[in-house]
Order: sequence, then C-alpha cells, then structure tokens
Amino acid sequence: MSDLLYKNISNSINLSQEDFNHFMKPFEYRKFKKKEVVLKEGNYCNFEGFVLNGCFKIYYLNENGFEQTLYFAVEGWWITDIDSLINNVPSILNIEALEDSEVLMISKKDKEHLYETMPQIEKLFRVMNQKSSVALQRRILSLTGKTADKRYLEFLEKYPGLEQRLTQQQVASYLGITHEFLSKIRKKIL
Amino acid sequence: MSDLLYKNISNSINLSQEDFNHFMKPFEYRKFKKKEVVLKEGNYCNFEGFVLNGCFKIYYLNENGFEQTLYFAVEGWWITDIDSLINNVPSILNIEALEDSEVLMISKKDKEHLYETMPQIEKLFRVMNQKSSVALQRRILSLTGKTADKRYLEFLEKYPGLEQRLTQQQVASYLGITHEFLSKIRKKIL
Repeated sequence: MSDLLYKNISNSINLSQEDFNHFMKPFEYRKFKKKEVVLKEGNYCNFEGFVLNGCFKIYYLNENGFEQTLYFAVEGWWITDIDSLINNVPSILNIEALEDSEVLMISKKDKEHLYETMPQIEKLFRVMNQKSSVALQRRILSLTGKTADKRYLEFLEKYPGLEQRLTQQQVASYLGITHEFLSKIRKKIL
Repeated sequence: MSDLLYKNISNSINLSQEDFNHFMKPFEYRKFKKKEVVLKEGNYCNFEGFVLNGCFKIYYLNENGFEQTLYFAVEGWWITDIDSLINNVPSILNIEALEDSEVLMISKKDKEHLYETMPQIEKLFRVMNQKSSVALQRRILSLTGKTADKRYLEFLEKYPGLEQRLTQQQVASYLGITHEFLSKIRKKIL
C-alpha cells in the first residue's frame, strides 16, 4: 500500500526503510466513494492526501458559476488546497472523488511535527513544492497563452489514458471550454 | 544592501548573523538599466535574483503574440523561471527591467552548494516554494475565475503604489486585457 508513496518520495530524497516507517506513521488510510466530497469551498483545508488509486477533480467556481478544474489527481498525485493549508484561510477549491479512491492522508499538525523530528523531510517538501510551482506556472501559461487545441493535446500527454475515465464535460472543465467546443476539437484532431 | 534580504529570510527561518554571512557569500550584486533584458525566452535560466529596488516584468507571449505578464517583481521579490531552472529546459518566460534596478543574484550551482553546506536553507526554500505555489494558484484562480474589474482591484491591493510606476499598457498586460478596456474599468471604479 505504501510502496507507491515510497517510490514517489524516492524521486526526491533517499530515505532508509527505518526512516520511511517513521515518516509513514502519521498517515491515515482513507477510502472515498465516487462523488464523495473531500474538501468543500469555504471550509479549512488541514490535510494533504497522497492518491493510491482512483481519481479526484480539484476545481473552483468562476464568476459565472462554471466549474473550472485546476487539475486531476490520479495515482501518485497529491491533493490539498495549499493556500488554505498554509495561510489558514477558507478554501476556494473543492476536491471531489470521480471514482472510488484510496488515499493516504496526513494532517497539517502531523506534517509540521515531521519537519521537527525528521529534518530530511524539509528537502522532500522543498523539492515537491518546486514541482508544484512548476506545474502551476505551466498551467497558467497553458490556460492564458495557448489555444484550446494545444491545451487538449497537452492534457492527453500529461494524463495518459485518463480521458477514457472522464466524461467529456469533465475534460472540458479542465480545458476551460464548453463540451461542445471540445467535441469540435476532438473531431478535428482525431 | 543585504538588510532587505535578511529581513525577507527572517520571515521563514532564524539565521544567526554568522550563518547569514555564509549564506550571502555566493550572491552577486548586479545593476540592470531600464529596458535591460535579464532573461530571454529560449535561453536557459540558471539564476535566482532577489530584487533590492526597481521593478521587473516577468512575461510570456501568448498564441496571438500578445505579451501576458505573469507578475511584477519589485523590492523584496524574487525573479527566475522556476521551470527552466529546475528542469533545465529553455525558458518560456522573459524578464525585463522596467526601471533601473539592483538585484542580488545567485547561480543554480551555488544555491545547490548552499543546500549541501547549510541544511537550514532547505527549510527556507521549502517555505518560499510554498509561498510561490500559493501565489501561482491565486494567479490562476484570478485569471480564469474572476472578472477584469476584480483582477484590477486585486492588483491595486497586491502592489500598493505600483500603478503610478507603470504604463497603462503594462498594467493591462498583467490583467490580460487591452489598455482600452482597462481605461473603462478605471473610469467605472475611480
């Protein structure tokens, strides 16, 4: 169960099995049913979750009330609202399971305790936060700088095989377009 | 000169004066003239810069060739293209001085050496990368979820006094709108 997390961490730091066991202790195994809400806008996010399997959408409502998906979290991805988590402000993001899913959750308090007891964890999350910044920067450049056609191709590359697990509406919400427009793009490209 | 950087760092970690002196060693003091280009799209970014004074625009060209400003970096802000820096890929961002400016620059190599010799620096950049992720997430939510009116009000709040140092075109490029549309918004709001 924790093999995937160990592999994920090993991309950033070298942890002995003993240290990894210590790291794992505060994580809690949780199952979420399809359509179950993990975080609702307005609530405070005090967790980070590592997705073992399944799929989540992390989304917000724009001024017109339309759902804009920030990202999908599948196996090996993390779920949280970092703004709410770090700054203790109500979440603007919603997190919802799109499939029956399994997650390893750690609370903010337990994570902060890990920083104190395991200094090498600082490096892990320094590297992970770098990757998160890169992903968010790419997302901005994509959403505001590229055509919907390119965004669709990027989506296919970033999430191999995921399109088959999503509705057309869900993909369109990630691309920031209507599902009618997505249909046109798919016809043109495929 | 380094007081501003010391203050900036002290928001994240406690460093003794001795440790701060060690931390400062690899930084290089640089002056940039107004309109001088610090980073050009297509080049590799191998630095981070701490802005002592002046102002920079960090921008990219969208599919239509229009300049979209990702952010302005004024006193106390950092300049880099984190994607290019971390992943050794050509930069998509451009960084240009909008005023005569002074910066403390550190190379990627020197920064990595600091991680090895000063473990407490891991925490500093873990916290800074968290803040960067929060800023980028807010920028996405703003650009794709909010009206231009709200984005303009957010800009005024985020960068107090900066509007008077920028052209209308530069502000419009940050908001993702034309300067004609910005004029209308300003008339409506002011």
